[in-house]
Amino acid sequence: MRRRVSVLLPVLLAGASEVAAQDTVRFTPTVGYRTFAVREPVLRVAPGSILVTRTNFGAYYTEQGGAFPGEVGPIVVEGATTNDVLVVKILSVRPNHEFAASRIYTDFGGLATESRVRLLNDPIPERRYLWRLDADRMVASTDLPDSRVGRIEIDLQPMLGRVAVAPRGEEAFGGLWPGDFGGNMDAPEVRPGTTVYLPIFHDGAYFYFGDGHARQGHGEVAGTGLETSMDVVLQLDLIEGKTIDWPRLEDDRHIMVAGSARPLIDAFRIAHVELVEWLEEYGFGRWDAYQLLGQLAESTIANVVDSAYTVVAKFPKRYLPRP
Amino acid sequence: MRRRVSVLLPVLLAGASEVAAQDTVRFTPTVGYRTFAVREPVLRVAPGSILVTRTNFGAYYTEQGGAFPGEVGPIVVEGATTNDVLVVKILSVRPNHEFAASRIYTDFGGLATESRVRLLNDPIPERRYLWRLDADRMVASTDLPDSRVGRIEIDLQPMLGRVAVAPRGEEAFGGLWPGDFGGNMDAPEVRPGTTVYLPIFHDGAYFYFGDGHARQGHGEVAGTGLETSMDVVLQLDLIEGKTIDWPRLEDDRHIMVAGSARPLIDAFRIAHVELVEWLEEYGFGRWDAYQLLGQLAESTIANVVDSAYTVVAKFPKRYLPRP
Amino acid sequence: MRRRVSVLLPVLLAGASEVAAQDTVRFTPTVGYRTFAVREPVLRVAPGSILVTRTNFGAYYTEQGGAFPGEVGPIVVEGATTNDVLVVKILSVRPNHEFAASRIYTDFGGLATESRVRLLNDPIPERRYLWRLDADRMVASTDLPDSRVGRIEIDLQPMLGRVAVAPRGEEAFGGLWPGDFGGNMDAPEVRPGTTVYLPIFHDGAYFYFGDGHARQGHGEVAGTGLETSMDVVLQLDLIEGKTIDWPRLEDDRHIMVAGSARPLIDAFRIAHVELVEWLEEYGFGRWDAYQLLGQLAESTIANVVDSAYTVVAKFPKRYLPRP
Amino acid sequence: MRRRVSVLLPVLLAGASEVAAQDTVRFTPTVGYRTFAVREPVLRVAPGSILVTRTNFGAYYTEQGGAFPGEVGPIVVEGATTNDVLVVKILSVRPNHEFAASRIYTDFGGLATESRVRLLNDPIPERRYLWRLDADRMVASTDLPDSRVGRIEIDLQPMLGRVAVAPRGEEAFGGLWPGDFGGNMDAPEVRPGTTVYLPIFHDGAYFYFGDGHARQGHGEVAGTGLETSMDVVLQLDLIEGKTIDWPRLEDDRHIMVAGSARPLIDAFRIAHVELVEWLEEYGFGRWDAYQLLGQLAESTIANVVDSAYTVVAKFPKRYLPRP
Repeated sequence: MRRRVSVLLPVLLAGASEVAAQDTVRFTPTVGYRTFAVREPVLRVAPGSILVTRTNFGAYYTEQGGAFPGEVGPIVVEGATTNDVLVVKILSVRPNHEFAASRIYTDFGGLATESRVRLLNDPIPERRYLWRLDADRMVASTDLPDSRVGRIEIDLQPMLGRVAVAPRGEEAFGGLWPGDFGGNMDAPEVRPGTTVYLPIFHDGAYFYFGDGHARQGHGEVAGTGLETSMDVVLQLDLIEGKTIDWPRLEDDRHIMVAGSARPLIDAFRIAHVELVEWLEEYGFGRWDAYQLLGQLAESTIANVVDSAYTVVAKFPKRYLPRP
Repeated sequence: MRRRVSVLLPVLLAGASEVAAQDTVRFTPTVGYRTFAVREPVLRVAPGSILVTRTNFGAYYTEQGGAFPGEVGPIVVEGATTNDVLVVKILSVRPNHEFAASRIYTDFGGLATESRVRLLNDPIPERRYLWRLDADRMVASTDLPDSRVGRIEIDLQPMLGRVAVAPRGEEAFGGLWPGDFGGNMDAPEVRPGTTVYLPIFHDGAYFYFGDGHARQGHGEVAGTGLETSMDVVLQLDLIEGKTIDWPRLEDDRHIMVAGSARPLIDAFRIAHVELVEWLEEYGFGRWDAYQLLGQLAESTIANVVDSAYTVVAKFPKRYLPRP
Repeated sequence: MRRRVSVLLPVLLAGASEVAAQDTVRFTPTVGYRTFAVREPVLRVAPGSILVTRTNFGAYYTEQGGAFPGEVGPIVVEGATTNDVLVVKILSVRPNHEFAASRIYTDFGGLATESRVRLLNDPIPERRYLWRLDADRMVASTDLPDSRVGRIEIDLQPMLGRVAVAPRGEEAFGGLWPGDFGGNMDAPEVRPGTTVYLPIFHDGAYFYFGDGHARQGHGEVAGTGLETSMDVVLQLDLIEGKTIDWPRLEDDRHIMVAGSARPLIDAFRIAHVELVEWLEEYGFGRWDAYQLLGQLAESTIANVVDSAYTVVAKFPKRYLPRP
Repeated sequence: MRRRVSVLLPVLLAGASEVAAQDTVRFTPTVGYRTFAVREPVLRVAPGSILVTRTNFGAYYTEQGGAFPGEVGPIVVEGATTNDVLVVKILSVRPNHEFAASRIYTDFGGLATESRVRLLNDPIPERRYLWRLDADRMVASTDLPDSRVGRIEIDLQPMLGRVAVAPRGEEAFGGLWPGDFGGNMDAPEVRPGTTVYLPIFHDGAYFYFGDGHARQGHGEVAGTGLETSMDVVLQLDLIEGKTIDWPRLEDDRHIMVAGSARPLIDAFRIAHVELVEWLEEYGFGRWDAYQLLGQLAESTIANVVDSAYTVVAKFPKRYLPRP
C-alpha cells in the first residue's frame, strides 16, 4: 500500500517549490473511518514525507447519492510525540470526479432548525444539488430549479474540510466534529499553499484527512459544500519540542488559528486568544497584541453547521516583526 | 448652519464620479447626541443631497483623553416615509486630526470579561494607545510598550462605525447599540465606495452618523478601532415604495446585509436570512439561494464588543443574474 | 390623583404584618408609557410610603384583544439618589378583571423563530387563548381547541412582570426590555412576599411597574403569561448610602439576583456573580461563596423570550450566617 | 461478579414499594471506564432486574485527592433493541464514604474562564474543599477558610450525575459529556424516586452510571458537587416498541425532559420541544401544549459546566389528563 518514490511530481506539486526533495509516499486508501480516534493505522510515514494520495470515494458523490465515505487515516508519523507539533503542508487538492453533491438537510444546516437547534417550526424541505465539475476550466455548474436564472456556473476553490489527529484520551468523535484536534473544521483556508499545525495527543499523531470541497462559502451555511472526491498531495512533518493548544494555519499572507466550539462566540474567543498567544511568541506584549488584533484581525467564520462551530482568526504577516 | 453650494468639490469627491450633480450641503455639526432617537433635527436635506460634513470632535481623540463625542444628527430627509428606504452613499471618509485613540477597557471588549460577560476572574488592565496619523501617507503608528518591536506602523482604512436612523417606536438606544436601525455596527465595510440602505421607522428618517475609525479589524475585538475625527462626504437619497428589515450594503463586489444581535449566531442568522430574501428579489428561489450561500457566502464579523454583535453576510455580485 | 390615607387596608395587606404604619398613598393611573425612561413623573411619594394602586387596563385583556397598556410610572421617590438602593416590597398583587389573555406570536416566543432568531423555516401559527379568571377560587380556565381534554383549569400565582427604574443615561428601553434597571424581567418571584431591590440611575429613581400575570411558567416560554389587570399594593423605600449593580430580590426563603442578558448563559453568569458578591457582603470569602453556590444554588429561568433573557440565582437564607 | 438474590432488601429500598418482586442482582464493580461507548459489558441483566450495586471508588474522594474513578458499565439489558426505551428506576442512592470532595478548577466551571470559554483574564485560583459526610444525620460540613463563619453544615440530597447508554454510532464520549444518550447530565432530579427513560442506540442498551453527588446545586456552577462514593439500587427495565429522542424523567410531581447542548438556550429548547412532544402523546394539541408550558413549566438548569449544558424542563403531573 505504500511505495517510496524518488522524484517529485511536477504537475501535482506546482507551486510547491519550497518543498525540499523528500521521500514521496504514494498511498491509495481502501477504507474510510467514521470517527477520529486511535486505531490500527492505515499507513506509517517518516517525518518530512510527501504523501501523494486521495480522499475516499463513496456513493455520496454519485448521481444517485448515498452514504458519505469516511476519512482517510489514521496515518502514523514515526517519532511523533505529544511534545511535538504535527505539520501538514497542503500542496495540492484537486477534484478527480465529474460531480460534486451538495444537500439541504432538515436536521443539519446553519439557517434552519436542526438536531441541536430544535424549535416548534415545521422543518424546511430537503434538497439535493448535483453540481457538474469541469476540472480543466475549474468551474462547477448546477440547475437552480426554482430560480429565474435556471442554471449557474461558479469558480472552483478546492479545499479539505477535515484534517485531524486522534483526539485526546479515549474519546472517538464522529466525522462532523471539529475541535482542538482539528477535525471537521470546514475552513476554506485549508487549501493548497496553507500549512496546518496540529497538536499531538498520542504518540504517532494518528493523522486523518478527508471531506474535499470543490468550493465552500464562509460558514458552510447550507450544511454542505461542493462535496467531491479529491487527489491530494500533503507533506507531513514535525516541529519537535513544541506544543500548541489549537490548530494553527499559515499561508503567504496570514498566520491563523482555527477555534471550534459552540456557541459561536466561544469559537471566536478560542481562536483569537490563541492568536494573541502566538503573537506573544513573536515578541509582542499580551496587551499590545490584543490592541493590534483590534485594528488588524481579519477573522472569518468557517462553519456554523458542524457539531462545533469554527472561527478562523487571522493576523497579517506583513505586520509581524522581522526575525 | 446649512449652505447650498452649486459645484462639487473634486478633491473631496475623488472617485465619486458616478454621483450626479446634486444639491451639495455643507454642514458643520455643533452638537453631538448620545442616543439614536427622534429629536429636534440638526439639519434637513432634500433627497439626493450631497452632504459635505464632518464627525464631532471631542476630548476622546486628544492626548489627554476624555469623553466620546456624540453622533451627528438627527438629519431629516425631506419626504422620507416609513414606506421608503434611506440610501446613504459613502463618498469620502478622511481623518482630519493628527491622533487616533484606542483603548483597552476593563468592562468592554471581545476577549475579556465585560459588563455583560461577568465572571469571577480579575479584570484585565486598562490601556490607552495613542496612534499618530499621517493622512498623506495614510498610515498610523504607535508605541508598543511591552513588545520587543517597540513601535508599529500600519496602513489606514477609514470607515464610519455608526450610520443610523432613529429606531422604531419611542426607544432611544445609546451610541454603543447597533440594530435594525443601523447604529453602532462597526462594520469596516462602511467605507468610501459603499452604499448603505437603511429601513425608515419615522417619517423623515432621522439619520445619524459618527464614530470614525482610521482603521479597525474584524470584530473590533479590543473594543475600539483607531478612533478619530473625520471629514465625511455622504449622499442621502430615498428608494420610494420599498421597505427592508435590516441594513443592506453594496459595493463594487458584493451585496451585503448587516445583522446585529446577541448571541453572535443570531447576528449571523439575521444577516444571512435577510440576504436570502434579497436574493429572492433577484429571482432566485429560496432554497436555491440558500444552496448558493453555502458555496459563495463571504461573511465577516464586524463587531463582538458592542451592545449587540454584528455580522456582515456577503454575496458576490458577479454571480447575480444580469438584469 | 394622589391621596394620603391614615389607615392600612387589612384586606389588601393580608400577610404584610411586617409593614410599619406608614403613609399610604392611593393612586389610580390614567396614563401608560411604552418605554422605561426619565420623563415627567405621574406621582411623587416619600420613602416608606405604601402605594395602593393598580396596573393600567387596556384592550389587550379583553375578549376582542388589542394593544398592550403601558407601564405605570414614573413614580419619583423623594430624596432618592444614585448612591441609594430602591426597595420595592410587593405586598399584594391580585387580578381585578375576569379575563386573562395569552397569545402565541409568530415573531415572539421561546420555542419558535422570532424577530431576533431568524431562520428559513416557515413561522408557526398565531393563537390567542382567553382565560377566564375566578379570583375567589384563584383559578383560571381556558379552552384547548386541539386537545382531547377540551378545557383546562389551573391555579393562579399572581406576579408582576415589570418593576423598573429609569435606565442609566439618556436611554429609553421599550417595555419588552429587562436589564440592570429591572424592567420586563418576567420573574415569577416578583410576587407578594418578595422585596425587590433596584439600583438607582437618576435622582428620584423614576419607578415603573406593570405587566401583571395571573400565572406564568418558568421562561414564559410561549411568550406571554396569563396577562391581566391587577390591584397592586407596594411599599417603596430606600436604603441610603448603598449601591448595587443588578436587581436583588428577597423572600422568606432565599436571597436572589435577577440577571438579564442575551445569550442566556450571560444572564446566568451576571445573576450568579452578583450573588457571589452579595454573599461576600455576608462575610463569605469569594471562593467559599463560589463553592457554596455549587452545592446550594437554586436557579431558575425567568424568561427566554424578552429582548434580554432573565435568570434568577437563589441562595437559601437558612445557610446564611446569623447576624 | 453477579448473583441473583430472591428477596428485596427492605432497608435499601425504603419507599420503593411499587417495585414488584423481581430478580435482584448484586453487583460490585471492579473497573471504571472513562468514555460512554460500546465495549465488552461488565454485566448482563434481564429486563425488570433490580440492581443492588455501587459506584466506583477512587482517589478523587480521599483526603489526598487524585483521579476521578470511571463509570460503572456497560451493563447490557438482555433483549433491549433500538426500538425500545430503557427504563432506569432510581430506588436508592446513599453515600458510603466519610468524605465528599469538591474542587474549584482553573479550566472548568460556570463562573470563570475555562478550556472552552477562553479570555485574556488571568485564571481564578484552584481550591479543594473536603466535606465530611454524616450519613446518619444526612449532613455534610466543611471548613470555609476565607469566611467569617469558618465552617458550614448543609443537608444532603444524594443524586447520580451520570446515567447513560452508549451513544449512537461509533462515537465514544468522555465522562464529562451529556447528550441524547444521557451521560453527565448532572441533574439533581436523578435521585431516589425518579425514573429515567433513555433512548437506545445499540441492541443491549449498554447502560452506564456513576458520579454520585451527596448534594449539588442547580447548574453545578463551581464545577463539581459533593463528589463521593455511593451505594446504589436501580431497577432496569424496557418499554418495548417505543422510541424517544432525549432522556425523559418522571417523579411523583412532574414529567421532565433533560436537554443537553451548548449554548444554554439550545439545551433549553431541546428540553422544552421534546416536552411538547411528550404532551402531544398525552392528547394535547401542539400549540395548546406550547401555551400550557408558558403558564406551567418549571424549568431548572442542571449544569452549566460540562461539555454540553443541561436544562430540565418540567410539567406538573396534576395538570395531565386522567387516563
